[in-house]
Amino acid sequence: MSAARRTVAVRGVGMTAFGRQPGETDRSLAEEAVHLALRDADLDPAAVDAAWLGNVTGGQLGGQMCALGQLALRPFGLGGLPVTRVEAACASGSVAVRSAYLAVASGEADVALAFGAEHMTRAPTKNTIGVLAGASDLEAEARFGVTFPGVFGMIARRHMDVHGTTPAQLAAVTVKNRANGARNPVAQFDEPVTVEDVLAARRVATPLGLLDCCAISDGAAAVLVVAEHLARPGDPRIVASAQTSSAFEPFGEMTGFALTREAARQAYAQAGISADDVDLAEVHDCFSIAEVLHTEDLGFCGEGEGGPFVESGATAIGGTVAVNPSGGLGARGHPIGATGCAQVGEAVLQLRGDAGARQVDGARIALTHTLGAFVHGAAASCAVHVLAA
Amino acid sequence: MSAARRTVAVRGVGMTAFGRQPGETDRSLAEEAVHLALRDADLDPAAVDAAWLGNVTGGQLGGQMCALGQLALRPFGLGGLPVTRVEAACASGSVAVRSAYLAVASGEADVALAFGAEHMTRAPTKNTIGVLAGASDLEAEARFGVTFPGVFGMIARRHMDVHGTTPAQLAAVTVKNRANGARNPVAQFDEPVTVEDVLAARRVATPLGLLDCCAISDGAAAVLVVAEHLARPGDPRIVASAQTSSAFEPFGEMTGFALTREAARQAYAQAGISADDVDLAEVHDCFSIAEVLHTEDLGFCGEGEGGPFVESGATAIGGTVAVNPSGGLGARGHPIGATGCAQVGEAVLQLRGDAGARQVDGARIALTHTLGAFVHGAAASCAVHVLAA
Repeated sequence: MSAARRTVAVRGVGMTAFGRQPGETDRSLAEEAVHLALRDADLDPAAVDAAWLGNVTGGQLGGQMCALGQLALRPFGLGGLPVTRVEAACASGSVAVRSAYLAVASGEADVALAFGAEHMTRAPTKNTIGVLAGASDLEAEARFGVTFPGVFGMIARRHMDVHGTTPAQLAAVTVKNRANGARNPVAQFDEPVTVEDVLAARRVATPLGLLDCCAISDGAAAVLVVAEHLARPGDPRIVASAQTSSAFEPFGEMTGFALTREAARQAYAQAGISADDVDLAEVHDCFSIAEVLHTEDLGFCGEGEGGPFVESGATAIGGTVAVNPSGGLGARGHPIGATGCAQVGEAVLQLRGDAGARQVDGARIALTHTLGAFVHGAAASCAVHVLAA
Repeated sequence: MSAARRTVAVRGVGMTAFGRQPGETDRSLAEEAVHLALRDADLDPAAVDAAWLGNVTGGQLGGQMCALGQLALRPFGLGGLPVTRVEAACASGSVAVRSAYLAVASGEADVALAFGAEHMTRAPTKNTIGVLAGASDLEAEARFGVTFPGVFGMIARRHMDVHGTTPAQLAAVTVKNRANGARNPVAQFDEPVTVEDVLAARRVATPLGLLDCCAISDGAAAVLVVAEHLARPGDPRIVASAQTSSAFEPFGEMTGFALTREAARQAYAQAGISADDVDLAEVHDCFSIAEVLHTEDLGFCGEGEGGPFVESGATAIGGTVAVNPSGGLGARGHPIGATGCAQVGEAVLQLRGDAGARQVDGARIALTHTLGAFVHGAAASCAVHVLAA
């Protein structure tokens, strides 16, 4: 396999507030995010060659099955360019970024737009949870009562049994991310919480309680990538992009995700770095335990050490590697299709030095990571990107 | 924009029977099509680098929202490779082919799989029609009663008013395609019909009657593309791939699709050919009138001449350009996500000389064309591919 990849820069990012937004739709949110990214890019919209949209529940929750991307781009006069919706469950936004990145890296496009949007609060929560269960194996899992909190509750239980991870360590993830979210103007949850708050919250799927879980959310984010000759000084570059799926081997341990380890291995090799070089990482904390696993799988700490690692403050802003300086899925929110784009948006702000109160000093290398769906004991999709200042 | 594209060949194709298949699911159908394509390719499945799945209604009709691609590939031990679902309504399968083609052409992959699957008959027809209306602008169109037969009924009415197209000419499309379908072992409808049958069928959206409309269908198809060094003698090459969206200009005429004309222009330029060089074309005959428009928009005949063109026999097997030798959407069937892949499958069989009773003699150049969604007076997506023996 020989791929002569061109250098790809991120010229514009934009995102809406994340949270409950009853007056909006996935289209109106997408329009706003695209508008903000185009304005941030200071680029003629007519220059966009192709676009990819991450959206998961538009059909099932709102009925708008197709053409959401084209409709959202209409106000910008962006007619004619190919628009493709990609869906990889919670990794959809990252796959949209990857698609745009590859289009520019390969020379197919000079300017490509990745955007993600989701409006999830329009339906009753239990309906939404039921729809989300479609990201498991319906025939073999959801039918028998599997839900995502339940799956990650089991993973947490196993991680505690095998590695001695404690509830307080899981709570430390939420405390850190809520503190970061309090510094993020677009975050869904902007009030700090304490370990006691997290431990006292009602249980959802023991040992996970309400504050261990990301919330249903509405929002959109957009990322505009360009070929090097269209980059401005200070525009970060995407230096690695990797996407993997689970091998669905006979069940191994549930205390780590092999597909994350493989995606990280590929990404580090592409970027010519190791885990130690990463200054900040936006990872997929759909549940507090998930972030613990990711810090191990991404190589920020050793296997089984994720609990003590977060408890020590190593993953706070100012620590060894700032994990989820935006507040992550738990505090910023998780409108499914938007999250992967929002992670890249945060990475770009950090690498530009524009992250305000949550700035990671001297940020040079950022990593983003999402997982999508959960079937047969493992996540189905993973996408990892590395950006460099 | 500079894209050094490698040569891409199609090494394997496979498809299931199309039609009502109550004992199957989109997953079981996808597995079968992938199995057939891998067997046709005579290639170690482990060689596949990436896969794209076209599926539209899996979530809304069956609940299986995500990971359908990974689940369908599991029996082949195809774990680990990135699997992405793409959705562009009825163009989904073509966009999956395009994604796989670009992955190999750019050097990102040496072997890429595009497959499409749809199981649409599990729900009552009126539910399915309601879901499909989500491929219009829900807020502005479907809410007010727009359905796809209704939209194309209006287009037919307009084409008759402006160009004098007759009901018998529309019927000639169905008669031809049903005759072709009768020669196609996998077609949903395998019995010929007469012009009188078509004109006498009950009206669905005047002037369109039941036999002017493609039917709800179940089925899957798969296409395996490879870099040139992995092609076998006789494997056709994909020599052009184009994807466009509508510009959503203030409404022009509804008697043609500008996005098809633009996609064809791009594809002919990439392939270095003109419309006259095309020996056979698999086009998007969701309704009889649609095929009339496509023959004009693809340049096979002049503007407004599509009715007389089909009536003359010019688009029959053995005519000037064989349009829908497979039977098309109308006779082969239209499981939405599968159609784009099935069109490429037919093109490959024809170019290999393996199309049996429906062989187009001396076929050297084939074109495939799909449209996806219909909003604000125009189709939202179009994908055109050109293949050469």
